[in-house]
Amino acid sequence: MYIVILAGGAGTRFWPLSRKMHPKQLMSVFGGKSMLQRTVERVLPLRPKGIMIVTNALQAAEATAQLAYLKDAPIEIIAEPVGRNTAPAIGLAAVLIARDDPKAVMAVLPADHYIADEEGFRATLRRAEEEAGQDCLVTLGIKPDRPETGYGYIEADQTLSGAGSYRVRRFVEKPALEKALTFLAAGNFYWNSGMFVWQAGVILREMETNMPELAAALGRLDLSGDSGKVADLDRRIAALYSQIKGESIDYGVMEKAVNVQVIPAAFGWSDVGSWRAFPEVIPPDASGNVLINIRESVNIDSRGCMVYGGGKLVALVGVKDLIVVSTDDALMVCAEDRAQDVKKIVEELEKRGMKEYL
Amino acid sequence: MYIVILAGGAGTRFWPLSRKMHPKQLMSVFGGKSMLQRTVERVLPLRPKGIMIVTNALQAAEATAQLAYLKDAPIEIIAEPVGRNTAPAIGLAAVLIARDDPKAVMAVLPADHYIADEEGFRATLRRAEEEAGQDCLVTLGIKPDRPETGYGYIEADQTLSGAGSYRVRRFVEKPALEKALTFLAAGNFYWNSGMFVWQAGVILREMETNMPELAAALGRLDLSGDSGKVADLDRRIAALYSQIKGESIDYGVMEKAVNVQVIPAAFGWSDVGSWRAFPEVIPPDASGNVLINIRESVNIDSRGCMVYGGGKLVALVGVKDLIVVSTDDALMVCAEDRAQDVKKIVEELEKRGMKEYL
Repeated sequence: MYIVILAGGAGTRFWPLSRKMHPKQLMSVFGGKSMLQRTVERVLPLRPKGIMIVTNALQAAEATAQLAYLKDAPIEIIAEPVGRNTAPAIGLAAVLIARDDPKAVMAVLPADHYIADEEGFRATLRRAEEEAGQDCLVTLGIKPDRPETGYGYIEADQTLSGAGSYRVRRFVEKPALEKALTFLAAGNFYWNSGMFVWQAGVILREMETNMPELAAALGRLDLSGDSGKVADLDRRIAALYSQIKGESIDYGVMEKAVNVQVIPAAFGWSDVGSWRAFPEVIPPDASGNVLINIRESVNIDSRGCMVYGGGKLVALVGVKDLIVVSTDDALMVCAEDRAQDVKKIVEELEKRGMKEYL
Repeated sequence: MYIVILAGGAGTRFWPLSRKMHPKQLMSVFGGKSMLQRTVERVLPLRPKGIMIVTNALQAAEATAQLAYLKDAPIEIIAEPVGRNTAPAIGLAAVLIARDDPKAVMAVLPADHYIADEEGFRATLRRAEEEAGQDCLVTLGIKPDRPETGYGYIEADQTLSGAGSYRVRRFVEKPALEKALTFLAAGNFYWNSGMFVWQAGVILREMETNMPELAAALGRLDLSGDSGKVADLDRRIAALYSQIKGESIDYGVMEKAVNVQVIPAAFGWSDVGSWRAFPEVIPPDASGNVLINIRESVNIDSRGCMVYGGGKLVALVGVKDLIVVSTDDALMVCAEDRAQDVKKIVEELEKRGMKEYL
C-alpha cells in the first residue's frame, strides 16, 4: 500500500500558534512530535511501499526538515505551487503511483488528525486495503458520539459486506443541528473523516468520469524521462497546477461516484479542527481545563478553559469556557463557542497587511 | 510644608505585573514614569521643605534609583525593616519633622494613587495646609460618584468652615452596598482618600492620646547626635520597629480624634486598588476595552476587557469583562468582578513556595 498524506493546510484556525509557515500539521502542541511526524510514524508499521507527502511550497522545507530523522522510510515530499484543495493533490499522487502500478492501493490521510488507538487505526487501514481490491472507493467513517455540526456525514446501507464495510448511500455536507440529531439517532450515519483508500487506477478512472477537466490535465502531465530530480518534477507540477482549478475530492468525486464503501472506524479520532477540539485530544483536568505548554498553574474557580501558555505560569480566576493562547508575539483570548472565528483574526491581519503575524 | 509619601505597599492585587520587589507604586503601567515618580513630581511645584518617602527594605533601592533623576529635590528615603501599616510610618515621619519644627505642616500621601487634575490637587493641599494651621487634623475627602463598597467613608457636618472644610462626624469602614447607596444619596459623605494634612506636633499629640504605646516607642527613638547617615538611622528605626505593632492611622487615630476636618476634593482621583480600576484611569476605547502595553490589537465582538499585553499583539474574540495580564513569566486571566481575588493567586504561590513569581 502507498500512503498519501495531505499536508497543505493553512491552519488559520490555530492562530496565533499556527502561521502560514508553520501550520497546524507542523505544530507540536502535544509536546514532542508534530502532527505530521505522528501521522508518518503511525503508518510506518504498515511497511508502505511509498509515503507521499503533498504539501505546499511554503511548508515543504519545514516538512522535509521535520522528517529527516526517518531517513530509512520511503518518503517523498511533493510541493504544490499553490493550494488547489484535495482533488488535484490526490490526482497528482494517483498519477505518480499509477505510473508504476495502476492496481496499487493508496490510502489518503490528512496530516493533521488526531488518532488515539494507532493499532486499531492500522487494522482498519488493512481492512480498507483488502476492500479496495474490489475496485471500489473506500472511506473511513467515524461513528459519531455527538450531533456535531462541524463535520460532513456519510449515510450507509444497513447491510454489512464481507470485509466489514457498508455501501455508501450518500454524502451529506455539514448539517444543521436538527439534522445532525436525526443522523445521530438513525445509527447508520458516519462522520466523513477525509481518509480514503482505493487503487490509484480506480480513482483516476473516477476522475475521468466525474472531473474530466482535472483528469485531462493530469493526463497531460509529462512523466516521460522523469529523472526523479525534485526540480524536474516541480516544474512539471507547476505547469499542471496552472491549468486546473481547486476542488475537493468529496464534491468532485465522492458525492457522485457509485461504488463507494464506508468502513466504520472506532480508533478515537478528531480532526482537531479548532482550539475548541483540544479537550477531545488532551484529557481535561478535574475542573474541565486543558492547560498546554505551561510552567505551572493556579486555578481559582475557573473551568472549561483551554490555555496554551507559552511556557509561562498560568493563573485563572473566576473564568470559564475561554480559549487563551500566548506566543512570543501574540496573545489571543477567545470565547470557547467562537473558536471558528479565530480565522477572522487572520483575515483582519491580512487586510491590515500585518504579515509578521501571519 | 513637608510631604510624607507612604510607599510600602506589597501590591499583590496587581500580580503578575506587581511583585514584592516591584509593587504597584514602582510600576509604570501608564507608560513612562512610575506611580511613585508621578507622586513626587506632582508635589514639586509646592516647593516642599522636605519629601520623605517611607518604603520598605525590599523596595528602597529601587525607589532610590527611580528618584535619582530628581537630584535637586529634598528627597529622603526611609526604609522600614518590616511593614507595620500606616500609623508607625506616619509617626516616624512626624518625629523626624517635629525634631526641627513641631509646628511644621506635613501632608501624608500614598505613593500609588492616580490624580487627574494635578493643579487642582495642589490647590487643595494648599488649602489643607492653611486649615492645618488651626491645630486640627485635615483629611482630603473625595466626593463619591458611585456607591463604591471598596472605600471607607467620612461623614461630614453640613456647615462649611472659613477655609472650605467641614468638621468630620465619623469615619465609616467599607460599607455594604445598601449603606453605600444611602451615603451617596445623603450628600455629606466622602471617600476616605488616605491623604492627610496636619502639623507634626499635632499628630504626635493625638498619638499620645489615642496610641500611647506607639507614642511611647516613638518617644524612645534616639535622635541625639544623629549624624544623618542612613545606616545610623536604619539601626535606630529597626530598634523602634521591633517594639511596635501594626496599626492603621484611620483606626489608631482618625476614628477617635475630635478635631478632624475634611476638605472636599474634586481633582479626579482613584486609588487604583485593583486591575478593575484601570478604566477609571485610562479612558476605555469605543468597545469599553482598556488595552495597555500592546503592540497592536484585533477586536472581534469583545467588550469591557482590561488587557496588559506585555508588548504583544492582542486579539480578542467574543469575550467580555475580563482582565488579562501577560508578563515575561506569567499569564493571568481573571473575571472583571473577581479582581479582588488576584491576591489569592499570590497567597497560593506563597503556600507553594514559588518565590520566583512573588
